Amino acid sequence: MTNLDPKFLALIHDVADFPKPGVTFKDISPLLSSPFFPELVQEMADLVRDVDCDAIAGIESRGFILGAAIAHEINVGFVPVRKKGKLPPPVHSHSYKLEYGEDTVEVKPGKGRVIIIDDVLATGGTLTAAAEVLAKAGYTVVDLAVLMDLQFLNKFSWKSHSAKSLIQLN
Amino acid sequence: MTNLDPKFLALIHDVADFPKPGVTFKDISPLLSSPFFPELVQEMADLVRDVDCDAIAGIESRGFILGAAIAHEINVGFVPVRKKGKLPPPVHSHSYKLEYGEDTVEVKPGKGRVIIIDDVLATGGTLTAAAEVLAKAGYTVVDLAVLMDLQFLNKFSWKSHSAKSLIQLN
Repeated sequence: MTNLDPKFLALIHDVADFPKPGVTFKDISPLLSSPFFPELVQEMADLVRDVDCDAIAGIESRGFILGAAIAHEINVGFVPVRKKGKLPPPVHSHSYKLEYGEDTVEVKPGKGRVIIIDDVLATGGTLTAAAEVLAKAGYTVVDLAVLMDLQFLNKFSWKSHSAKSLIQLN
Repeated sequence: MTNLDPKFLALIHDVADFPKPGVTFKDISPLLSSPFFPELVQEMADLVRDVDCDAIAGIESRGFILGAAIAHEINVGFVPVRKKGKLPPPVHSHSYKLEYGEDTVEVKPGKGRVIIIDDVLATGGTLTAAAEVLAKAGYTVVDLAVLMDLQFLNKFSWKSHSAKSLIQLN
């Protein structure tokens, strides 16, 4: 499932019934706050280091943490993909369906090649929406990577791209 | 007001009447998404590089971007200070007053020496609340740093600490 060092895996905790009953939350905060964080960032950066890009795009909020550190590691800029109403105008928006209701992501207009980073890939709804809004805003999405891909919940692909990951759960 | 390279300042845009009428928003997203992001991270890291710490604590959401990249730069972990309900239990909470209503920040229990990072210091309410909740959670706050200190809005201090900054607006 993963070649990742077991010391990393021991710091990702399953939390039952969070944020709502029946859902098991993957809590990566013990891993982030540990001294292994810089090593984790390097391992994730290794997934995309050979891809020519101008910036990393991170998805609010947890994707900001890994995304910004990876951007710094590979020496490029960081494009925030934000929730509705957080970025000042002008913005490009993309709405997408959730299990109940819908959500909207926003990006400021821009250009160049971006790699999208998030922490956990579950159904893929948010990752797809991020790719769509970045494309609308003028960016070229050249790759996508997550820390953990819950493959039992998705068969993610966007245009010709699948998502790279350090950990796959089947 | 700052020794910062003017190329950085030109990428911080004033947006009038955002998020509400009468407020001028400091939009740092053009700076973050520019190729200067890694250099900005290094300059901010220089503010705290000599301070002995175990982790950087970043305040959701924009403090995650600078904070995580600085944590990676100085080779320590990253502690997220989150909005209410985002972290699974157990958490420590601290509520604080806003101009209208109140807000709550949460942190998971932990220990060690942390430096708090955020993007903009305005009234200081959020930065103070972050310091309080981190102390409640078991951490020792040893320093605080922001990209931009709007000193005309605050005389920030928390216990014996003031806030370091790259840019001061008087």
